Amino acid sequence: MENGGSPAPANGWRFKGNDDLTQASSLTVRGVLNMLMGNLNSDDTRPVIPLGHGDPSAFPSFGTTPFAVDAVCAALRSALFNGYSSTVGIPSARRAIAEYLSKDLPYELSPDDVFLTIGCSQALEAIISILARPGANILLPRPGFPYYEARAGFSHLEFRHFDLLPENDWEVDLASVETLCDENTVAMVIINPGNPCGNVFKYDHLKKVAEAAKKLGIMVISDEVYDHLAFGSCPFVPMGVFGSIVPVVTLGSISKRWIVPGWRMGWLVTNDPHGILTKQGIVESIKGFLNITSDPATFMQGAIPEILENTPSHFFEKIIGTLKETAEICYERTKEIPYITCPSKPEGSMFVMVKLNLPLLDDIEDDLDFCSKLAKEESVILLPGLAVGLKNWIRVTFAIEPSSLEDGFRRIKDFCQRHAKKQ
Amino acid sequence: MENGGSPAPANGWRFKGNDDLTQASSLTVRGVLNMLMGNLNSDDTRPVIPLGHGDPSAFPSFGTTPFAVDAVCAALRSALFNGYSSTVGIPSARRAIAEYLSKDLPYELSPDDVFLTIGCSQALEAIISILARPGANILLPRPGFPYYEARAGFSHLEFRHFDLLPENDWEVDLASVETLCDENTVAMVIINPGNPCGNVFKYDHLKKVAEAAKKLGIMVISDEVYDHLAFGSCPFVPMGVFGSIVPVVTLGSISKRWIVPGWRMGWLVTNDPHGILTKQGIVESIKGFLNITSDPATFMQGAIPEILENTPSHFFEKIIGTLKETAEICYERTKEIPYITCPSKPEGSMFVMVKLNLPLLDDIEDDLDFCSKLAKEESVILLPGLAVGLKNWIRVTFAIEPSSLEDGFRRIKDFCQRHAKKQ
Ligand SMILES: Cc1ncc(COP(=O)(O)O)c(C=O)c1O
Ligand SMILES: Cc1ncc(COP(=O)(O)O)c(C=O)c1O
Repeated sequence: MENGGSPAPANGWRFKGNDDLTQASSLTVRGVLNMLMGNLNSDDTRPVIPLGHGDPSAFPSFGTTPFAVDAVCAALRSALFNGYSSTVGIPSARRAIAEYLSKDLPYELSPDDVFLTIGCSQALEAIISILARPGANILLPRPGFPYYEARAGFSHLEFRHFDLLPENDWEVDLASVETLCDENTVAMVIINPGNPCGNVFKYDHLKKVAEAAKKLGIMVISDEVYDHLAFGSCPFVPMGVFGSIVPVVTLGSISKRWIVPGWRMGWLVTNDPHGILTKQGIVESIKGFLNITSDPATFMQGAIPEILENTPSHFFEKIIGTLKETAEICYERTKEIPYITCPSKPEGSMFVMVKLNLPLLDDIEDDLDFCSKLAKEESVILLPGLAVGLKNWIRVTFAIEPSSLEDGFRRIKDFCQRHAKKQ
Repeated sequence: MENGGSPAPANGWRFKGNDDLTQASSLTVRGVLNMLMGNLNSDDTRPVIPLGHGDPSAFPSFGTTPFAVDAVCAALRSALFNGYSSTVGIPSARRAIAEYLSKDLPYELSPDDVFLTIGCSQALEAIISILARPGANILLPRPGFPYYEARAGFSHLEFRHFDLLPENDWEVDLASVETLCDENTVAMVIINPGNPCGNVFKYDHLKKVAEAAKKLGIMVISDEVYDHLAFGSCPFVPMGVFGSIVPVVTLGSISKRWIVPGWRMGWLVTNDPHGILTKQGIVESIKGFLNITSDPATFMQGAIPEILENTPSHFFEKIIGTLKETAEICYERTKEIPYITCPSKPEGSMFVMVKLNLPLLDDIEDDLDFCSKLAKEESVILLPGLAVGLKNWIRVTFAIEPSSLEDGFRRIKDFCQRHAKKQ
């Protein structure tokens, strides 16, 4: 030993871990999925069917377009984007995102409304950190995306849950929003198209959300990371359309539409034609947050104009076509299994929520038990609803090869029949 | 107006900005430099000489190696790295970094000691967030890198400054470390090679730092973002060498050695052969932090083995040769200007601190005034020492084309002579 034997100082070590972090990260989707993966039976020679997570980038039917890969390589090879970017993002990328999003809005966004972030995740971190002040609270959807709860917990921002109503196509329970809100409520979050529900909010519903938020004096945070992944009868409408009713902060990224979640390129956008977010100091705080955090890779920013403006539309059409097909498979196969129920056909994103009919099952305790045993016996991974706030439901990802999805449902059916209560 | 006229709800808007963020980000290097850039005289037709910031990636003599660009493009084109990575980083990259760093250590790092981060910045954010608990404090160097103060402020972690001693080659004032430390002190930070001082700590001094920290029961955070950028008589020694005396957390990245700060790829590494950081819960907290933040782009991680293992050594030799040359120019030209003094010749990083001899200058109030007038009159940007904690000093970046550096010093000399006190 280099220092005379004992590795410990006389009075012990003075540093220790941080419980806030361990707690905030304890019930993440990834944590639960890792646990289930640990449950797989290594003697099962069949392929594992991963219906638990939201990253189809490795499946042949969901590969990204070579066009986007070329755009990033070209930006890299230009040698123009090796240095630090400005903390809000490089001007050409801000302009391209403003133009891209303005196509669906009744007004023009300015490049100054756009802030570049490391995926939609960092956009979410930014707005949660900004809104966290002692005593404040935020309204989050249930079921939802638990990263919001984790980040709010880490920032000591109190959160309260409003329900999404399965019997109403997972619309927001606006009455409960009003009940939950008090003078310390600062914002409500919606996710559209929906994770985990696979719903797409209708224009009229979004307008009602805007009006309710305005009445309550709170801003709307609209997580549109699945923007344009809508393949049902209801078209995707960005919440920013209602920016003149209530200030809207839109969170987005190229992760889902281009199926490149590993590229870490996203944005936070203020939809605020009346300048209320500026007046209330939110815009200053966004800049302040970005001054003291890292940025998306500069060459990724450099590639953004080309990617947003020129990606051939047949790529999007192909992806939407595949999602439509797999959503259909998912819905039809669920109908054939009496032990699970899907309240409404998914119309967007990559997920759907199905309810476990526990009384029909024999030795299954709850959603976690269902998913653990299914992993072990059938090598199929599903996400227990618990992980997204809805116990005894299950989130199914349908962004996977159609044939694997069929295989997965066959195994789920076998599993349920094996565990069915004898009548 | 869509909603009956008034854009405001009856009781006003309930959200507002976050002063913590505005404060934490107020005195950053970028903030001061932006202010100085605003001071430039647009009638001056000469090129601006930027000696203020630490990003030489745009200068021909400091371009990165095409080898690294090829490695990233190859990783992208492989289509293996488009998806999310695990939150600690992909195994091949962790292994490559462990091997890369172990070459300079008396023991072998394990891949599990390595956590991938979005540049060295996120490594710094991670460790500061982890150590921040009510009442704790951390010791930071003065002069230093103000991002530490900004992040500590944001996390409500108290910081105390120990001095680096210009008369001792900017060594740590270990006596003041001992005086500042109390039972709530958890860590001390060193930056080696030094920003802003351009010093490289000697083996014996680092050993004394380790022994002092051990005696005090605190860990050492060693910011080695400029690792291997040492070109004087003193070789670079990683603090991890003393990991068996005291637990060391090393922060690093490819930003500086490969001159690609825009690529946002770094690491946090535990140098802890006795497993003390694990026992104290620090390793759990690192994982917890990484579970609730974003990751470096997966294809950047995918390129890391190739970049670390196979970059041709002539690239490093060329960069070191250029830095040696520009450091020499910087030191010699300073000696020729009686109004500024450089206490020791820079031996590492890209910076040096020079002291203003204010009594010899006529109408210059302080470092900020010097830099503002210099920007306006001579289109030369320097960083006021204030921004790095040392008033009436100035930080000069010498990582710039040699000819521009000569030009810059000619202008500084002219400026000083014009503002000299008449004898
Ligand atoms: C609702 C929601 N928001 C945000 C994110 C994070 O997106 P990104 O990968 O762009 O950081 C996800 C990722 O799954 C998500 O489902
Ligand atoms: C001392 C020090 N630490 C950390 C950083 C951040 O490094 P990166 O660009 O890899 O995030 C810098 C950048 O200038 C620095 O000078």
